[in-house]
Amino acid sequence: MEETFVPFRGIKKDLKGRLLCYKQDWTGGIRAGIRILAPTTYIFFASAIPVISFGEQLERDTEGSLTAVQTLASTALCGIIHSIVGGQPLLILGVAEPTVLMYTFMFKFAKDQKDLGQPLFLAWTGWVCVWTALLLVLLSVLGACSIINRFTRVAGELFGLLIAMLFMQQAIKGVVEEFGIPKSEEANQLALQPSWRFGNGMFALVLSFGLLITALKSRKARSWRYGAGWLRGFIADYGVPVMVVVWTGVSYMPVNDVPKGIPRRLFSPNPWSPGAYTNWTVAKEMLNVPTVYIFGAFIPATMIAVLYYFDHSVASQLAQQKEFNLKKPSSYHYDLLLLGFLTLLCGLLGIPPANGVIPQSPMHTKSLATLKHQLLRRKLVDTARQSISKNSNLSELYENMQQAYNEMQTPLAYQIPSSLGLKELKESTIQQASSTGCINAPVDETVFDIDKDIDDLLHVEVKEQRLSNVLQALMVGGCLAAMPFIKKIPTSVLWGYFAFMAIESLPGNQFWERILLLFTAPSRRYKVLEEHHATFVETVPFKTVAAFTLFQTVYLLACFGITWIPIAGVLFPLMIMLLVPARQYLLPKFFKGAHLQDLDAAEYEEASATYNMTFGEDDVHSRTRTPQVDSAEVLDEIMTRSRGEVRHTNSSKVKGLTQTPIDDTKPAYSPRISQQVDSPHLNELRVDKIPK
Amino acid sequence: MEETFVPFRGIKKDLKGRLLCYKQDWTGGIRAGIRILAPTTYIFFASAIPVISFGEQLERDTEGSLTAVQTLASTALCGIIHSIVGGQPLLILGVAEPTVLMYTFMFKFAKDQKDLGQPLFLAWTGWVCVWTALLLVLLSVLGACSIINRFTRVAGELFGLLIAMLFMQQAIKGVVEEFGIPKSEEANQLALQPSWRFGNGMFALVLSFGLLITALKSRKARSWRYGAGWLRGFIADYGVPVMVVVWTGVSYMPVNDVPKGIPRRLFSPNPWSPGAYTNWTVAKEMLNVPTVYIFGAFIPATMIAVLYYFDHSVASQLAQQKEFNLKKPSSYHYDLLLLGFLTLLCGLLGIPPANGVIPQSPMHTKSLATLKHQLLRRKLVDTARQSISKNSNLSELYENMQQAYNEMQTPLAYQIPSSLGLKELKESTIQQASSTGCINAPVDETVFDIDKDIDDLLHVEVKEQRLSNVLQALMVGGCLAAMPFIKKIPTSVLWGYFAFMAIESLPGNQFWERILLLFTAPSRRYKVLEEHHATFVETVPFKTVAAFTLFQTVYLLACFGITWIPIAGVLFPLMIMLLVPARQYLLPKFFKGAHLQDLDAAEYEEASATYNMTFGEDDVHSRTRTPQVDSAEVLDEIMTRSRGEVRHTNSSKVKGLTQTPIDDTKPAYSPRISQQVDSPHLNELRVDKIPK
Repeated sequence: MEETFVPFRGIKKDLKGRLLCYKQDWTGGIRAGIRILAPTTYIFFASAIPVISFGEQLERDTEGSLTAVQTLASTALCGIIHSIVGGQPLLILGVAEPTVLMYTFMFKFAKDQKDLGQPLFLAWTGWVCVWTALLLVLLSVLGACSIINRFTRVAGELFGLLIAMLFMQQAIKGVVEEFGIPKSEEANQLALQPSWRFGNGMFALVLSFGLLITALKSRKARSWRYGAGWLRGFIADYGVPVMVVVWTGVSYMPVNDVPKGIPRRLFSPNPWSPGAYTNWTVAKEMLNVPTVYIFGAFIPATMIAVLYYFDHSVASQLAQQKEFNLKKPSSYHYDLLLLGFLTLLCGLLGIPPANGVIPQSPMHTKSLATLKHQLLRRKLVDTARQSISKNSNLSELYENMQQAYNEMQTPLAYQIPSSLGLKELKESTIQQASSTGCINAPVDETVFDIDKDIDDLLHVEVKEQRLSNVLQALMVGGCLAAMPFIKKIPTSVLWGYFAFMAIESLPGNQFWERILLLFTAPSRRYKVLEEHHATFVETVPFKTVAAFTLFQTVYLLACFGITWIPIAGVLFPLMIMLLVPARQYLLPKFFKGAHLQDLDAAEYEEASATYNMTFGEDDVHSRTRTPQVDSAEVLDEIMTRSRGEVRHTNSSKVKGLTQTPIDDTKPAYSPRISQQVDSPHLNELRVDKIPK
Repeated sequence: MEETFVPFRGIKKDLKGRLLCYKQDWTGGIRAGIRILAPTTYIFFASAIPVISFGEQLERDTEGSLTAVQTLASTALCGIIHSIVGGQPLLILGVAEPTVLMYTFMFKFAKDQKDLGQPLFLAWTGWVCVWTALLLVLLSVLGACSIINRFTRVAGELFGLLIAMLFMQQAIKGVVEEFGIPKSEEANQLALQPSWRFGNGMFALVLSFGLLITALKSRKARSWRYGAGWLRGFIADYGVPVMVVVWTGVSYMPVNDVPKGIPRRLFSPNPWSPGAYTNWTVAKEMLNVPTVYIFGAFIPATMIAVLYYFDHSVASQLAQQKEFNLKKPSSYHYDLLLLGFLTLLCGLLGIPPANGVIPQSPMHTKSLATLKHQLLRRKLVDTARQSISKNSNLSELYENMQQAYNEMQTPLAYQIPSSLGLKELKESTIQQASSTGCINAPVDETVFDIDKDIDDLLHVEVKEQRLSNVLQALMVGGCLAAMPFIKKIPTSVLWGYFAFMAIESLPGNQFWERILLLFTAPSRRYKVLEEHHATFVETVPFKTVAAFTLFQTVYLLACFGITWIPIAGVLFPLMIMLLVPARQYLLPKFFKGAHLQDLDAAEYEEASATYNMTFGEDDVHSRTRTPQVDSAEVLDEIMTRSRGEVRHTNSSKVKGLTQTPIDDTKPAYSPRISQQVDSPHLNELRVDKIPK
């Protein structure tokens, strides 16, 4: 993306690009048929459960001023608007942990102000949102998003880890509080006697760890050995919400003598209860806020604006990673403008604003890649079956499939030049055909195994459309009506879910992986090389990796520490944004350019192809070892490495590409192992090279 | 072993063989030095913790007639005697779950008899032991152990799974009871109010699952990526007892308001408390037992005799598996005779008898194999270092090491002909030497990597001696003095330990693995072939495997069901022994001989080499893939497959050996995969073939 700061230029370009494919965004979604429901429900659960948890958290921290009703309403409202009139429909909007944190800071401030207090808290946040909206619109108009390529891995991953730490902190705090007396309730209840509180706390431990462990296990269901394939797939996709239901069921098991209120459950008014809708008319009260506070609202507003600018853009960036091979254009500028308007709307309605969320946004893209894969695969399998029944030879078969594939490609008005087509037939398949002397003979299943060879032909592609996003937002809205059922979830199950989200967000985060590398026994570091790993493991000296990681860790702990400071905590987004200039101007003074390039690829420093992982190479590689591997499982594995820059043991290639001078010390691990190299010829033979 | 029933012949032969190496049994142990303490403490914990748990179980089931004091005393006493005057010192003795079960049956019977009741229960069991001892002596004298090769896998593994089910049943029952009121205590205690009972039960869930999960994880510590090697080794070896200590510590964490008695802890008198030693003089009361019950005692006695005959022999068999390459002779007949005398002694002392235990006995051999490996390795590393510093070439180096190895071999008076020496140098090492043209040049570390190549030269050998056994038995005796500390362990931690033992005993049990295979999705069965797997997976049709497993499962459930029948449950050992003739005469009518041979290798049917797994081949195979693998980890992996008959994907070899006619149906999985074959030439090249 070019760095241009001409006003409105970025917004115009975004709008033009997205408008050209707007119609296809809808028709493509509708044409996918009933299968669109799989990614929709997947994202709905991933979106709704945290938002309900945040509502619970807000309800405690704002003494009931905001509840799950407001967080759900905001998520649904913003989601519906963004998915219809927004730019990038892959981006999922929701009330996020940093927003909850900022609202908590603001509540603590407002409550102690004589002229504000709890009654005027929401009116005051209305003003904060007005200022935030103004700043976001300004940033958008002035083209601030064109520097998005400066948001490198180091900042994004630090932010990701900070969110994970906040989640984990809330999980631990929540469980500990289950042993205590909740603030909002009367102390003379039977369930609050010391004996029952002890039982409640222990039950909370059982429920939260039960949810955490089973949810983590269920995510790996696709590679289980037991059970039918559809069941494993179902558990992997829907295991977490199923586990929430299961553990809620378990929470109803103790009935004898156990008083009501054990375990504690979600406390939230129904949206139709009297008093629950007072906040919706908060706009009327906004003029009652004293002038000094109206202008004072500008301070938290800058922080929220910085936060949203960063968070929204990074979430969008992660949903559009290179390895997804997206065909439709990005829309950073226009989406930030829309976010400004949405923030204003939320502020006037007295609900916390929603912004682009991690990890739900990349999860959304990933689930749509799985959908597209299924659709393409079905078509190609049909074509291959027909060709084989017509006694085609191998090259005819391939041509037929290529044609079928092209038919599936919707001609877009706005077409990004794409060289992607079907991949070439595998060398092994062709060799097998040659060796049996049947290149021109009709193909049969021994030469071309429909079930597995077709997977090898497909690149990662994504079903880019708006339907799944709007549907999931509508379903989140539907949760408001289902509030009586949602209130049956024990709070301890939610604390378990917080811990689950924290742990789930770690794999693929290179910062986290580098921390782990520091704790890896030196004799075990070779194991990292055997798996998918980042370039730096091979090219950067271990001491440099350690120093870089230590710097990042100290910075992370500083950010985390700031959130603990009562009012100044509001400044934490600034700390994260500061990392961007620090990365650009400060770090190069302490680390070598080549090392920084490998540790934290920044496009503005060197435009070399660091994202050189393709679905193909890896896939063929793993496939030659495990012939009947489940394609969705492979997709799973590739997608969890969230920022793409990952490679197999292939040191020679790496060194050729990045030309790292290895001079002073040894690299982190000098591999004696790299005999196991990718076979470079695999996948290169084109079908027209087949001897006829 | 020849099947001879000439009285005393087997005992004489055993005695003669063991006497010839008796002195070396002690000197060898002492010469191992301080390192002998590692296997000793390992087995001590594996032995003591279950025995304490069984004591707790017995204390509940016999209303305090027997406690952990008696089970510990019996285990220590029998262990000390057996390790000094017994035949096979690898065999570990202890009070086992079936004994506990039999004593529970007997208590339930005796309690309801007007003429016996609880007061005469121990006196009556004294008579049972007298009869049992008589039967065991008779069995031993008449050479019953010579048919031990008829105890095939099908019976042994069914027995193992039955034990696992009983353990798991006890774990579940124990945790459920934590929510209820214990029989033996008064109901008006504060800790027994409904609210505190609820808390106690939930706490028990936390403690037992905590122990179970952390103990299971700690067993895999050797392959962890994090932490220093010695720490990982320590956790893998001692993690389970450490976890018992840790979770006992956790149980002391809740202090505020929580009454004494939560969580419930081991209830056992100290050995020096008044009244605790009444049972030791039970012999005096034996004549008070009415005559009809003295003779009636013969019925449970036969069952216990059958049980001990089977259990003792199978435990001994498992401790002497072929892949351990033992050099000293077995001693089935004489050990059974000694068990008879030990049973008599225990009966007269009023304590439950101990017999050979699974899985502790094979665990003992395994830990001694690790010890021997460490000792040999150290010697060879020293030799290799010296040779290299003297500029030896590769064949000189090898000769020096062979010489050092021979020095370590104690010349035994009784020498089983053994062709084992150092293994040949790896082809890869020689190739590397040839290719660099330095076969006659001095060896350096690039050609011969001392740390890893020496592991490849060593076979599995076991440090066979008596010291570790006698020391561990003495330490179990020491637990009696430590009873005040042992009583701090919460009962719920023990229930977790029961579940842990049940789960730990499953891997390597082919019956269990076949049950899992039935639940494996057909599309995933190829995964079994990628790992170590038994012959039958490749050679026996899936339907046959399923039928065989179903038969075994029904039989297992029948055995398990019988243990639930109040008094007739005493007959369950008979059910297991019945499986031996059923296997020999009944099963061949329903299954083909070749299939039975692969599913349940019986030496009496065909003396072909089914135990063809060697440490070498597998090891080289895995080592070529993972160069710096921890040798103890490899040993771990090999030893968990408890009965040896395991192979890598190598279907051609298998078919050639067993000549299974595959005619009617497909085998369980017809491998398209078996391209990945062991390279048969590896490890074959002898050092004298090196070009000079």
